[in-house]
Amino acid sequence: MGQIPAGRSPEGAGGARDAGDAWKPSGVVTLLTDFGTDDPYVGMMKGVLLSAAPGCTLVDLTHAVPPQSVRIGAWFLAHSFGYFPAGTVHLVVIDPGVGAGRKLLVAQDRGHAFLAPDNGLLGPVLSERARVLELDLERFARPGASRTFHGRDILAPAAAALARGLAPAEAGLAASQLEPGIEFPRARRTAAGRVECEVLLADRYGNLILSGRPEDLGEDLQRWTVEAAGRTIPLRGAYAEAAPGELLALVDSYGALEIAVREGSAAARLGLRAGDPVTFARKA
Amino acid sequence: MGQIPAGRSPEGAGGARDAGDAWKPSGVVTLLTDFGTDDPYVGMMKGVLLSAAPGCTLVDLTHAVPPQSVRIGAWFLAHSFGYFPAGTVHLVVIDPGVGAGRKLLVAQDRGHAFLAPDNGLLGPVLSERARVLELDLERFARPGASRTFHGRDILAPAAAALARGLAPAEAGLAASQLEPGIEFPRARRTAAGRVECEVLLADRYGNLILSGRPEDLGEDLQRWTVEAAGRTIPLRGAYAEAAPGELLALVDSYGALEIAVREGSAAARLGLRAGDPVTFARKA
Amino acid sequence: MGQIPAGRSPEGAGGARDAGDAWKPSGVVTLLTDFGTDDPYVGMMKGVLLSAAPGCTLVDLTHAVPPQSVRIGAWFLAHSFGYFPAGTVHLVVIDPGVGAGRKLLVAQDRGHAFLAPDNGLLGPVLSERARVLELDLERFARPGASRTFHGRDILAPAAAALARGLAPAEAGLAASQLEPGIEFPRARRTAAGRVECEVLLADRYGNLILSGRPEDLGEDLQRWTVEAAGRTIPLRGAYAEAAPGELLALVDSYGALEIAVREGSAAARLGLRAGDPVTFARKA
Repeated sequence: MGQIPAGRSPEGAGGARDAGDAWKPSGVVTLLTDFGTDDPYVGMMKGVLLSAAPGCTLVDLTHAVPPQSVRIGAWFLAHSFGYFPAGTVHLVVIDPGVGAGRKLLVAQDRGHAFLAPDNGLLGPVLSERARVLELDLERFARPGASRTFHGRDILAPAAAALARGLAPAEAGLAASQLEPGIEFPRARRTAAGRVECEVLLADRYGNLILSGRPEDLGEDLQRWTVEAAGRTIPLRGAYAEAAPGELLALVDSYGALEIAVREGSAAARLGLRAGDPVTFARKA
Repeated sequence: MGQIPAGRSPEGAGGARDAGDAWKPSGVVTLLTDFGTDDPYVGMMKGVLLSAAPGCTLVDLTHAVPPQSVRIGAWFLAHSFGYFPAGTVHLVVIDPGVGAGRKLLVAQDRGHAFLAPDNGLLGPVLSERARVLELDLERFARPGASRTFHGRDILAPAAAALARGLAPAEAGLAASQLEPGIEFPRARRTAAGRVECEVLLADRYGNLILSGRPEDLGEDLQRWTVEAAGRTIPLRGAYAEAAPGELLALVDSYGALEIAVREGSAAARLGLRAGDPVTFARKA
Repeated sequence: MGQIPAGRSPEGAGGARDAGDAWKPSGVVTLLTDFGTDDPYVGMMKGVLLSAAPGCTLVDLTHAVPPQSVRIGAWFLAHSFGYFPAGTVHLVVIDPGVGAGRKLLVAQDRGHAFLAPDNGLLGPVLSERARVLELDLERFARPGASRTFHGRDILAPAAAALARGLAPAEAGLAASQLEPGIEFPRARRTAAGRVECEVLLADRYGNLILSGRPEDLGEDLQRWTVEAAGRTIPLRGAYAEAAPGELLALVDSYGALEIAVREGSAAARLGLRAGDPVTFARKA
């Protein structure tokens, strides 16, 4: 079954359904790409979906994943899919390897279906119970399929078939030699009372989402401070516990640790970006 | 019933239904936030909505409200909601006070339902006939609700309940001591034949939407000129009455007075932005 | 029937239905505008559509057409509409002439319906079999229709009527003296083994879409190289046939010739933009 390792259990994903369960589509298809929305590429995919699965409900997760950024895409999907109803099809097109013979994957996990290129993106998304198959390309490819846009020409038709009731297990072939799943960087305990992590991404507000999670610090978060860009920053329970313009760290909507400025941008204030180091220090 | 004052009657809102009318959902939910669309935050909310209200129709009003800009959000909602069918739920998440104990509101007005933080945003949106209640947080909060994202964890479940038929009046508790509604700046008559106002916002085209409205000038708009950034600008009936590249003022799609450049950007040409003064002068 | 000339057959458009066929709506309406998504203008249009055609499915083709760019809009629509199911209504609002008495058009072609200002945009979209009429403005205008936003006040109500079953042929009046259709620049053979074209647009990835198409080069694409910005660039079959960071040309998802950098931006690398010349040279 390949090398895709079991990831962490995503926030909010119900655990009741087993991967072996029957597939019951919700009629919802989410789209996650690095296409942006300036070009009509997303629209083309939706046209293919609505042609083959009339009446399905299409939801944009986001199309602003930085071009070819498999890691950011994995983060977004891992933390979002569980909010959708069981039976949802999650269609991912971040695909730097298109046209080079890389595989496409179809998976079922905890009641959801996933379609994505075999580039490691599903690694942190799927659990140990996931069933992952290699998508049967010939079955789903549109006539005259391009070598540059498999999202439109193969994955969208496959997503439509799943949304109409085809079980993921029926859409693929036994997979072997899959790409290893990517892994998010983890926080490391480097000394007594010191935990080091890094900035994963900055969101629209300039909030800095960190690779550290509250469980890396233990029970009493108030006993820690954050050291970043030469500043010492207090941990709070919510944005509004800081004064406007003040730096704070907190547990955010992803369930991750985050550095923020209340009603401002921590990314701009600190000059930090993805990959930069951040240290949590336990108060004496 | 708190301090939210009656606002102006929004453009296009039918006045036939009384706030006391029975609630008949249209199945449409609009979303208005300052989240942007680069992150999956909007997608998470849609997942919660579709989980609890399968088949509802989700419409993005816009997610590009400047972060924490309650006033711009109020302007957008006040001028947009009336175009939707009666029975629509309008979900607003511009929420700098999240996690600090501020109330959430549920309102019914002219056949529409509104959900928003209690930060004054609904002031210019609702009419005197609106019924405004404090949302019953405990009833709608998802298990493990965060302190940073009530849009996803409380408001979206409440919106889903309204979309499925729960009456707004049943979703809240009697409200008291609400925040005062924000007010848009108004045009002022400063001398005979002179009316002063200000720039409210620039839109995508660089059109400058003003706080002045045609009723501030009286019946014959052609008798006025606009003075802004040292320029004197004529009032026209439509963009196309100016030559390409020429400055003009006109009554715009919001029903407001606006300065524009035909096939160009008035914001760039004049160097004006929100808050800058503009004067209407009556021709001799 | 006016001057709109027959365009090229768009990619992917089924040819089976005749323009004279009965109109069978799919319930899908696509929207293509230059409004951007920062303002609530698109939301207003959707409100009007959902008020008049409850349950219709709305798809954003894109709203990021550069302001007033009829040519880019035509390119996007011509290459996208064919992916949607027959019976789809395509609503286009790129309308620099709004309020100046320009006509609005309603057309039926190959099973699809089109609504757009009469500014040449539909020229490269429609085939010789299209039936083009002048929209009956008075029939569809909302009460108090503005002179600045016919997309919301006339075209959206007309689109809703088509989505509910009104035949395009019933929505218009016989058209005369239409604006000439715009034309995309074409590749020219300037010498034996030399074909000159130009950059049409850069997409989100910085891929440079060219006015040349594979049929301009003949059967064996591998026998050509591209000369652009002083560089000689090889033709490949897919992005992944180049090394990361390497320049290549290929047939893209539009079916056009394109210059790209694998996992990078050709627009940034070469400093080229719309209108700049590109030459294809046949290898000796």
